[in-house]
Amino acid sequence: MTMARPSGVERKLEGLADVVIRAAERGKDPAIAIPVRSLSNVKFNEKRRIIEMGSKKQARTFFNMGMAKKFMQTILVGDALSELQRAGLTTSLREIYYRTKHSIGGSHENTFDGQNESDPLIEDLEVTLEALREELHVRAENAGTVTGPLVVVDDGDVVDCAKLGKGGYSVPSIVEPEYVRIKKCTADFVLLVEKGTQWNRLAEDRFWRKYNCVLLTGNGQPPRGVRRLARRLNDEMKLPVYVLVDNDPWGYYIYSVVKQGSINLAFESQRMAIPDAKFIGLSSRDPERYGLPRNVGIKLNDKDISRAKELLNYRWFQKKEWQKEIRYMLSIGLKFELDALANKDFQYLTKQYLPRKLRDKDWLD
Amino acid sequence: MTMARPSGVERKLEGLADVVIRAAERGKDPAIAIPVRSLSNVKFNEKRRIIEMGSKKQARTFFNMGMAKKFMQTILVGDALSELQRAGLTTSLREIYYRTKHSIGGSHENTFDGQNESDPLIEDLEVTLEALREELHVRAENAGTVTGPLVVVDDGDVVDCAKLGKGGYSVPSIVEPEYVRIKKCTADFVLLVEKGTQWNRLAEDRFWRKYNCVLLTGNGQPPRGVRRLARRLNDEMKLPVYVLVDNDPWGYYIYSVVKQGSINLAFESQRMAIPDAKFIGLSSRDPERYGLPRNVGIKLNDKDISRAKELLNYRWFQKKEWQKEIRYMLSIGLKFELDALANKDFQYLTKQYLPRKLRDKDWLD
Repeated sequence: MTMARPSGVERKLEGLADVVIRAAERGKDPAIAIPVRSLSNVKFNEKRRIIEMGSKKQARTFFNMGMAKKFMQTILVGDALSELQRAGLTTSLREIYYRTKHSIGGSHENTFDGQNESDPLIEDLEVTLEALREELHVRAENAGTVTGPLVVVDDGDVVDCAKLGKGGYSVPSIVEPEYVRIKKCTADFVLLVEKGTQWNRLAEDRFWRKYNCVLLTGNGQPPRGVRRLARRLNDEMKLPVYVLVDNDPWGYYIYSVVKQGSINLAFESQRMAIPDAKFIGLSSRDPERYGLPRNVGIKLNDKDISRAKELLNYRWFQKKEWQKEIRYMLSIGLKFELDALANKDFQYLTKQYLPRKLRDKDWLD
Repeated sequence: MTMARPSGVERKLEGLADVVIRAAERGKDPAIAIPVRSLSNVKFNEKRRIIEMGSKKQARTFFNMGMAKKFMQTILVGDALSELQRAGLTTSLREIYYRTKHSIGGSHENTFDGQNESDPLIEDLEVTLEALREELHVRAENAGTVTGPLVVVDDGDVVDCAKLGKGGYSVPSIVEPEYVRIKKCTADFVLLVEKGTQWNRLAEDRFWRKYNCVLLTGNGQPPRGVRRLARRLNDEMKLPVYVLVDNDPWGYYIYSVVKQGSINLAFESQRMAIPDAKFIGLSSRDPERYGLPRNVGIKLNDKDISRAKELLNYRWFQKKEWQKEIRYMLSIGLKFELDALANKDFQYLTKQYLPRKLRDKDWLD
């Protein structure tokens, strides 16, 4: 039942401890150089087409009134992460907070007062050690589902996602190769569906069988495991990834995070982003093209409008087609959910909308 | 790929249409008798130990200014539900809203202006036709995961939940026998875990193998599919169900809904509730018994306190042990998350807490 241990990460964590030990031996101030995780150190790499971190770093030292506690906390978190590596276990952000929380000997002060103190340190260690959160064995929720011609090996079990009925395989939070091996995938593409309800429609209709695709959903903003699985299918199996979202600024944003990563977690783009991902819909032109009545549209509210205007300014939405797409939404003043396709017919998505989209290669890049 | 059709439900829906047709033929006012879904018509059945609906009904008629639109809407929803039955399809509440929304001929008025108008009518039809929402083919999200010695047949596929690695089988929203057949279950009990993070811990440690149980989670308040699957395992396979939740009023409430159903959906208790379910933890006594430090407890806020006091008054929490349990939480003024067990050790839940609970049969009824 033990897991393969990525000794690379374990060694990196030990290196962190070595910094402290070496400094102590020499009577010097231990210091860690931590890449800066602020907007000022994030840029869009036009060539790689992903959001990346820059090279700015900041030293975190112990002999410094303003940093001593944070330094101590960083080492405590590093210690908990080492424990995970040694034991071959995974855990959650919240459990790391509880694991590292205790009162400081002889005082009533706690090492941590809230998870908001430990979470950023885990991100600091991610960027410092150049290890994805998953490689540090920290998981999020399993919130995704997959079905289709994909066979994986998970903890020794061979799981054929084409043989799991309409339920499907619950995508683990951590799908790194040491945990989930892609054994076989004969699909032609990946369809990443924003919402579970459309995933259910397509799974029920066995859309993936007729169109030979992997059907993936994260039930909303795709969680890390779902994004990482899509990226691995793109990377290792060379499958195109099509993203199907509601026609609203939030849908555009979900697509953009899948494609080039997010500003907040810029470090992760290199392992999570899928720069070749395509936006297959719902486009702001679709309601007219597919004859959806105006009364199934929803009036854009002020927040939608200001969010759409923000998106218009993002570097990665500067392509002419994207400017037209977003501006058209603003001009008609309506957003449309994928669910609205049911107005035509319960199976309109499966039988009309997606087949026509795929046939016409009608997507945005 | 077509599904078995529960012709019973289809006939009931046709019966609804017949009411209208017969009245029209006779030039009479069509009327439907709809059970009243308000608190006044809900009671706790001490003998069956579930929350039930009473027998009050109200007539909904067409020739009545105040009811005409609602009557028309009820028939539209019934028509959409019939379409689902005939085609052997399932859909979501939201898609039913979109499907039945159109402008009324020659006017600018819509049949429905929001989903808040169609949802209650689906509930009306559930209670009127005595059909669970699932039997009406209306699904919610797939939000649950299961692993363990359970073999189901889903859409012709034989799914062995013991062979799906750490990911598991994604529990469909609809697990009625026509969709998911329980082929084999050799487990000794069902462990229904509130949060995904503990489910992940137990799945990673293969707890279900050592303790021979079905490990089930709904990632929070268990969704209908998860409750219904637990209920079927209890009913058909005679398995005890243990519920593991955070130690807070919300955890108590989740347990109580699993056990005797909810006030809002009292009609469904007879098919969803598990009156024999046991509360295995986290109990307000556990932090002391298991040596959790006070500083991993969270101070009860005003909302927690008033919610706990409400629970003290519920009929189904009148047992002496439950009164003590809730009062003890109030007296120490702290709530504890299951995650806090990680303070002792990342595997404390798997290796210490649950084994001792099961050995000592330390649960509340």
